[in-house]
Amino acid sequence: MRIAIDVMGGDHAPDAILDGALDALELLGPGDRMVLVGDKEIILDVMAERGCSDDLRIVIDPTTEVIEMDDLPVSGIRSKPDSSIVRIAKLGGRRGKNTEEHCEVIISAGNTGAMVAAAQMSMRRLPGVHRPGIAVVIPTFHGPIVLCDVGANPEPRASHLHQYGQMASGYAENMLNIENPRVALLSIGSEEAKGNALVKEASVLMRADSSVNYVGYAEGRELFNGIADVVVCEGFTGNVVLKLAEGLSSGLFKTIAAEIFEIDPDLAARFEPVVKSIYKKHDYHEYGGAPLLGANGICLICHGSSEARSIYAAVRTAIRYAEKDVNADIVKAVGQSASVGKASV
Amino acid sequence: MRIAIDVMGGDHAPDAILDGALDALELLGPGDRMVLVGDKEIILDVMAERGCSDDLRIVIDPTTEVIEMDDLPVSGIRSKPDSSIVRIAKLGGRRGKNTEEHCEVIISAGNTGAMVAAAQMSMRRLPGVHRPGIAVVIPTFHGPIVLCDVGANPEPRASHLHQYGQMASGYAENMLNIENPRVALLSIGSEEAKGNALVKEASVLMRADSSVNYVGYAEGRELFNGIADVVVCEGFTGNVVLKLAEGLSSGLFKTIAAEIFEIDPDLAARFEPVVKSIYKKHDYHEYGGAPLLGANGICLICHGSSEARSIYAAVRTAIRYAEKDVNADIVKAVGQSASVGKASV
Repeated sequence: MRIAIDVMGGDHAPDAILDGALDALELLGPGDRMVLVGDKEIILDVMAERGCSDDLRIVIDPTTEVIEMDDLPVSGIRSKPDSSIVRIAKLGGRRGKNTEEHCEVIISAGNTGAMVAAAQMSMRRLPGVHRPGIAVVIPTFHGPIVLCDVGANPEPRASHLHQYGQMASGYAENMLNIENPRVALLSIGSEEAKGNALVKEASVLMRADSSVNYVGYAEGRELFNGIADVVVCEGFTGNVVLKLAEGLSSGLFKTIAAEIFEIDPDLAARFEPVVKSIYKKHDYHEYGGAPLLGANGICLICHGSSEARSIYAAVRTAIRYAEKDVNADIVKAVGQSASVGKASV
Repeated sequence: MRIAIDVMGGDHAPDAILDGALDALELLGPGDRMVLVGDKEIILDVMAERGCSDDLRIVIDPTTEVIEMDDLPVSGIRSKPDSSIVRIAKLGGRRGKNTEEHCEVIISAGNTGAMVAAAQMSMRRLPGVHRPGIAVVIPTFHGPIVLCDVGANPEPRASHLHQYGQMASGYAENMLNIENPRVALLSIGSEEAKGNALVKEASVLMRADSSVNYVGYAEGRELFNGIADVVVCEGFTGNVVLKLAEGLSSGLFKTIAAEIFEIDPDLAARFEPVVKSIYKKHDYHEYGGAPLLGANGICLICHGSSEARSIYAAVRTAIRYAEKDVNADIVKAVGQSASVGKASV
């Protein structure tokens, strides 16, 4: 297997990304390849520092440009053809599929919009999939849930949401070992007639599909209540939800810490291990990247704030994803024959 | 002034609602009236218990039906014409405007969808307003913000969002004493080109309107960052955001409490005053109801879990709203002359 990593993407790139990638070499077999995409000099320097210059599993694919976090996706891709994102998308894409350079896995912590757009252009879709969606695993008080889509597709049709339910079910089943995952649609009330036209239409499609264990609507407050394993929504709301949950959690911890300090400075020191323990149990860095479900290949999108261990975890996720052949299940779920799926992955 | 209160609406109705309403009598002048809408026997019993049977400011408007929390809005209104929600909407509405029964303020903690639908039917809109929106004050780490809309209008047009910015600005200015409030549109990135078609179009309208202090997009994680005083979104996402913030906060406090207990049971007792202090600072019960901005009158929608003090706070909010004549500012802001506004409120 060939795994391509965008060394230049992310708030802590290139150092943290390179560290994570090189740490993850221990997960690879002798025939596997880790393709490091980015600034050649930097990559060579770090490889020398870490004493792995002679590791034959490392391949450098040099690029000279970087799509920054605030670049617009499409114009970024157009104006920076020699960027790491454009390159790894090509490595994961069809054009490279019959060549030695083709990579089964691509991983980036860079500009999400650009990565999604580049991946869609180069990799195309699995047979039968209308639109890919980003699925993210969110740790909750009742165990992890899969939320899909969190931003690949901000203007979906109901049939796209239906497929997100099918695809994210396959992901939850294979990757989180949840048997027959309960799928909910994010909405604004539990009754069928509540919600907007999009979720109402998607609800009808989900209910008619016996292959999806559809449990109805979930409200915002129920996301963390354990009522569903997979929550489907359109990418706009999903992205708002994901970022809100992040911002609110970290803000709440800060508020609590400040309040404790004000009331009893001595207590603050004793509160620290509590926070650390909670962070450890609910650490999204451990989940290792969000797959672009429906892409014809394995594209993992990592959080912009990814650290070395996030990249390590993403490689681990990717290997598992490939071994379980999640994409074959997705192709089956969206109505294509499994054999076509296996052949095309 | 006449203030109508739906005694039958809310999880703790009728007791908590009646308690709050009767507590709030102290806020009223001798010529004001508190119209209690609901089960006559219950109201009379509680009035007798509390020794205020002879208070001439109390008017009972008896109803025999209740729209339950899980009733569908429109069918609930149709099938229960003698419900407290239908009645107070009429009291606040045009039909009663020239009669003695007309109430300047209506307050309900009942079924939100039904209250919004009934209010829209009976009260109609302020001149120039396209669609009313619910504005809720959310306590954040950087002070309160106004989020609008949180569910009145799940399929808005861009012009509706623009008006939410105008109306919620007027609300923040008058009710939270925020001068020239900064208005943001909730979106999925800070750049103009990000977001869906709706927010992009609304952004153009906001930017072209010099009367709105528009600061651009706010992402989910920035809601609690202090970058805006007013955050505008469509009702579907707004409702999800509001409920998510509630559910996540309460879940996080529970997780922290459980974790503290596990690590150090002795610490748990000392953590309690911290939680209480935070709750007190960020208590939404204190904000007293969310106005249906744009309705031709004052309609305050309270949280389903409202306690007596929430209803008390809602009466306080309503009196301030009326004194400040917020609706006149709204009419002015959406482009009608102030005189028409004042006359019609």
